[in-house]
Amino acid sequence: MRVIVDANIPAAERCFGALGEVVAVPGREIDGAALAGAEALIVRSITRVDAALLEAAERAGARLRFVGTCTIGTDHVDQAALAARGIEFASAPGCNAEAVVDYVLSSLALLAEREEAALDQRRVGIVGAGNVGERLYRRLVALGLDCRRCDPPRAEAEPGERFYDLDSLCQWADVLCLHTPLVHGGSHATHHLLDAERITALKPGTWLLNAGRGDCLDGTALYQRLVMAEDLRAVLDVWEGEPGIDERLRRLVDIATPHIAGYSFDGKLRGTQQIYAAAMRRFGLSARLSLDDLAPRPPLSRLELGGGLPAWDALRLCMRAVYDVRRDHDGLARRAATQGMAKGFDAWRADYPLRREFGTLEVALGQGGRALAPLLSAAGFRIN
Amino acid sequence: MRVIVDANIPAAERCFGALGEVVAVPGREIDGAALAGAEALIVRSITRVDAALLEAAERAGARLRFVGTCTIGTDHVDQAALAARGIEFASAPGCNAEAVVDYVLSSLALLAEREEAALDQRRVGIVGAGNVGERLYRRLVALGLDCRRCDPPRAEAEPGERFYDLDSLCQWADVLCLHTPLVHGGSHATHHLLDAERITALKPGTWLLNAGRGDCLDGTALYQRLVMAEDLRAVLDVWEGEPGIDERLRRLVDIATPHIAGYSFDGKLRGTQQIYAAAMRRFGLSARLSLDDLAPRPPLSRLELGGGLPAWDALRLCMRAVYDVRRDHDGLARRAATQGMAKGFDAWRADYPLRREFGTLEVALGQGGRALAPLLSAAGFRIN
Ligand SMILES: NC(=O)c1ccc[n+]([C@@H]2O[C@H](COP(=O)([O-])OP(=O)(O)OC[C@H]3O[C@@H](n4cnc5c(N)ncnc54)[C@H](O)[C@@H]3O)[C@@H](O)[C@H]2O)c1
Ligand SMILES: NC(=O)c1ccc[n+]([C@@H]2O[C@H](COP(=O)([O-])OP(=O)(O)OC[C@H]3O[C@@H](n4cnc5c(N)ncnc54)[C@H](O)[C@@H]3O)[C@@H](O)[C@H]2O)c1
Repeated sequence: MRVIVDANIPAAERCFGALGEVVAVPGREIDGAALAGAEALIVRSITRVDAALLEAAERAGARLRFVGTCTIGTDHVDQAALAARGIEFASAPGCNAEAVVDYVLSSLALLAEREEAALDQRRVGIVGAGNVGERLYRRLVALGLDCRRCDPPRAEAEPGERFYDLDSLCQWADVLCLHTPLVHGGSHATHHLLDAERITALKPGTWLLNAGRGDCLDGTALYQRLVMAEDLRAVLDVWEGEPGIDERLRRLVDIATPHIAGYSFDGKLRGTQQIYAAAMRRFGLSARLSLDDLAPRPPLSRLELGGGLPAWDALRLCMRAVYDVRRDHDGLARRAATQGMAKGFDAWRADYPLRREFGTLEVALGQGGRALAPLLSAAGFRIN
Repeated sequence: MRVIVDANIPAAERCFGALGEVVAVPGREIDGAALAGAEALIVRSITRVDAALLEAAERAGARLRFVGTCTIGTDHVDQAALAARGIEFASAPGCNAEAVVDYVLSSLALLAEREEAALDQRRVGIVGAGNVGERLYRRLVALGLDCRRCDPPRAEAEPGERFYDLDSLCQWADVLCLHTPLVHGGSHATHHLLDAERITALKPGTWLLNAGRGDCLDGTALYQRLVMAEDLRAVLDVWEGEPGIDERLRRLVDIATPHIAGYSFDGKLRGTQQIYAAAMRRFGLSARLSLDDLAPRPPLSRLELGGGLPAWDALRLCMRAVYDVRRDHDGLARRAATQGMAKGFDAWRADYPLRREFGTLEVALGQGGRALAPLLSAAGFRIN
């Protein structure tokens, strides 16, 4: 079997080699001709998979039976066109959710340090409890924080679970984390879910994070609130009008990053692994490779902690050794200054340095350090 | 023998117990009466040791034969009054010099990251090559940086060594590090050594660090240059008018800290150890305890690095795991906002969190990481 893969997919040869011959092609160059003789196609978001491509592929002699995208987004894929041809399709929902949670924890830990606030005394409201939001909820609860979720679609579908409505959540929470997709219209529309009215009404001192979609939050209203009073702390990874985002807003935001919350190497690998598993199922084979098999040893594999550090300082140390959100904040600021906002935004994403997830770090706890185990493992580290 | 020690001196009992009975007294409460029967007195800078104290001590029956201060400064000690009484005196020059070098490396690494500059391509001029400056020079040269020193007193005393004059250093250097003491008058006065004229003349893009004394640099002139153009990067740990420093200047400085560059726990212990060694010599005993004997295991004792990280990123990771200057910058900003400038400045110093030196971290280099050994050991880490 001939499998065409985007050349930018890590571990593709190792995974899809189980199906047959793997041919790596740059994502932009995957056209009908490139698909000649192919039975499976594995893409990232750069390749548009639509009726035009499928027709061209058929003319070139492709006999596609499976298409997978190693990304959570599927906007670039015309699923109806695939279904009409009986081609099975899979995407990789949640593959980068752990990375986003790492990003949020890193940001919260930084704000807490700067404000000299005890993070475990803060009440966190999570808006959108899907792959990202639900994982964030579980990790924060495990860390001992008081958390509540707002997710009307889930509230309707899961009457047994406890959810809160957005306005009461805003009143209750000290920290508000947005992880909603962009939904236009309908009863659960999310465009400007945080609109001027809600932003104006936020409690003084609220920490506001958005790592969902930029358009879920009215950036102009946030800018106006931040100019008026310095009491709010804001963390934005997603923005209206990316990549040409509002430079004035960027300057007022405490942590401003260019849509990289989910950019871990492990997330990419997990995407490959999920699509590999789906493809193997499609062709009646069993998937032998797990994420652990695919993931290379991280540059920082282990550290040893003894006693002497307050628990949250120890946690911060471990988190930052793996990922420090300030690097991305500073990187965007620098690129914006040297290349201009839109170019700088994209440049930092394109040159993104290798980033691993908290789960790749093993922490050995020596004498006096044992008491740190619950907190560190709740945050996602492997304790030894 | 009765030894009076400032209660704030770590490991004092363990060290000075070799001489006899050790009595710990809060530094501010060491008066004549407290010294009754004492033959040795060990202080920090908070206790004024002058003729008045010595006379009161004599009246109370002290028979002092040794006074030591576990600090590099000696302004609080009237050495002539001690000499007149035949009391031997010792201070602890250089005890916190390694900590200042850690501070400077941490700051340079941060600026390099923010500017996306290759640190080893920068030319560093060091003004004042004493205990701090000379150690900085050696570590930077070991790291592969092109460094030059300006130190007129040493230039006169050591004709074999190469030194440069300040103005040519300013012309040559991309980075200027000030480590001079405050000297009023004489041919090598340092008050406003960097005056308005020299600050105005600094090359665009210069990084300017001062961790010597605040008055060696004209803060008003620096403020004016920073307001005029954003091209300069500034790192100040020492300021004119401490603790009530210029808030406008603080806001414009890239890294602004409250005179804590030397505040490592190891530096304090080294101060104790140096005075212990001097006291033992004075009384004809041999000092058996080294700094390694006294230093407790650090909270973070070891980390393991493999390949995959660019060398300077690996170095930054190790440095930050031990000491990250941003904590102190953020701490000062926060305290200034909540307590006001002067109180906030002192408060951050008083509550200073435990800080260890780079030399306390052991770095194990796994497969692919061996190539990092030279750089990491040049920076002061122990390689394993
Ligand atoms: N910043 C990044 O790098 C990054 C990375 C991953 C995901 N994301 C974005 O984050 C968002 C969430 O990702 P996910 O993987 O968790 O998606 P998901 O589809 O798994 O979860 C989204 C959740 O939002 C809920 N929701 C829908 N409408 C809502 C509303 N009006 N109010 C509250 N909740 C609502 C849904 O019920 C669902 O539970 C997506 O938009 C995704 O594009 C960003
Ligand atoms: N920021 C901190 O926390 C911290 C910590 C330690 C030391 N310090 C300060 O740093 C300064 C240096 O400390 P040190 O321990 O290296 O002192 P030191 O006495 O060992 O060295 C000072 C050096 O400066 C040189 N010098 C004197 N006048 C000079 C001039 N006009 N131009 C150039 N060089 C000149 C001297 O010759 C000497 O070599 C002191 O003022 C000290 O108080 C600050």
